[in-house]
Amino acid sequence: MAAVARWEPDARGRLQQAAWELFAERGYDQTTVAEIAQRAGLTERTFFRHFTDKREVLFSGANQLNDLIVNAIDGAPPAASPMEAAALALRSVGAVFGDQTFSRRRQAVIDQHPELQERELIKLAKLAAALSDALKRRGVTEPAASLTAQTTIGVFHVAFQRWVAEGETRGFPELVEEALAELRSVIRA
Amino acid sequence: MAAVARWEPDARGRLQQAAWELFAERGYDQTTVAEIAQRAGLTERTFFRHFTDKREVLFSGANQLNDLIVNAIDGAPPAASPMEAAALALRSVGAVFGDQTFSRRRQAVIDQHPELQERELIKLAKLAAALSDALKRRGVTEPAASLTAQTTIGVFHVAFQRWVAEGETRGFPELVEEALAELRSVIRA
Repeated sequence: MAAVARWEPDARGRLQQAAWELFAERGYDQTTVAEIAQRAGLTERTFFRHFTDKREVLFSGANQLNDLIVNAIDGAPPAASPMEAAALALRSVGAVFGDQTFSRRRQAVIDQHPELQERELIKLAKLAAALSDALKRRGVTEPAASLTAQTTIGVFHVAFQRWVAEGETRGFPELVEEALAELRSVIRA
Repeated sequence: MAAVARWEPDARGRLQQAAWELFAERGYDQTTVAEIAQRAGLTERTFFRHFTDKREVLFSGANQLNDLIVNAIDGAPPAASPMEAAALALRSVGAVFGDQTFSRRRQAVIDQHPELQERELIKLAKLAAALSDALKRRGVTEPAASLTAQTTIGVFHVAFQRWVAEGETRGFPELVEEALAELRSVIRA
């Protein structure tokens, strides 16, 4: 009988959990993919079926975030302006960011590694491109689509940085509303 | 007598010129630092005194751009709002982008290389950080400083992408004004 892949319930989740335990215990740099797989009771091969490399464990929420934003834009009322649709999308992402403590730990790792900051910038640029494409599907023309997308990702970035800052107690949705209000005030001034 | 460095009038400019000739003749990938130095009649060591690597030849205008923007913000009238100061800064950068044909050739190289697109994103992020810091020196508080900076870099990025697009005949300053007007319209809608 040919060997078959073992059924691995939530292998992805177990790998993430193992990775974060090891990052906390010995630091991000000192953790290898082999150790993550071993801690999760899985093989390296399984790790690479779920993540392209160790860095991707930190950005595993990016696809979910992307889908939430694009779906919210696609589902926005037809009469909503580009910025209203984008604001709806920003409001919908609060659900992904449940745990402030976890997000702070994650951000601390990213802040210490320039190559992770670069990957974060790339993820944000892809998010802006996906947002712009979603707006174009609603009939928004250029340069309004790109400007709305860039501005929205700017608002997202600023709200997120505030949310993960030490001592911040407000929730992500509140910080998004504050940033949107501040943006309107800045542009009108 | 100890060897002394030869005086190299505008070594940097000669290296850039040589690099761009070689990129055009044989392509960016097929060009080495050794060949760039040889074409310029200089040593590799001289190349590395001016650029950290081959990629940096494409981003050699970034520091000048950074200085122009920061100086324009610092020199803006005290009564100017954050966005007015940022708009003044955007208007001041037109001078750096004289040659549309050159910028298109440069963009074509960047568009073909993901690692160059990443470096471009990093340069833009640094520009946003410098802009935000300059606004804070004017007394602008957070989140207004970061939001204005992110939004301004978004406007810059959109105007620049349009400017280097094939068939675009308008100048960079005109595209900046259009993007600023469109941004106000998008936010007010």
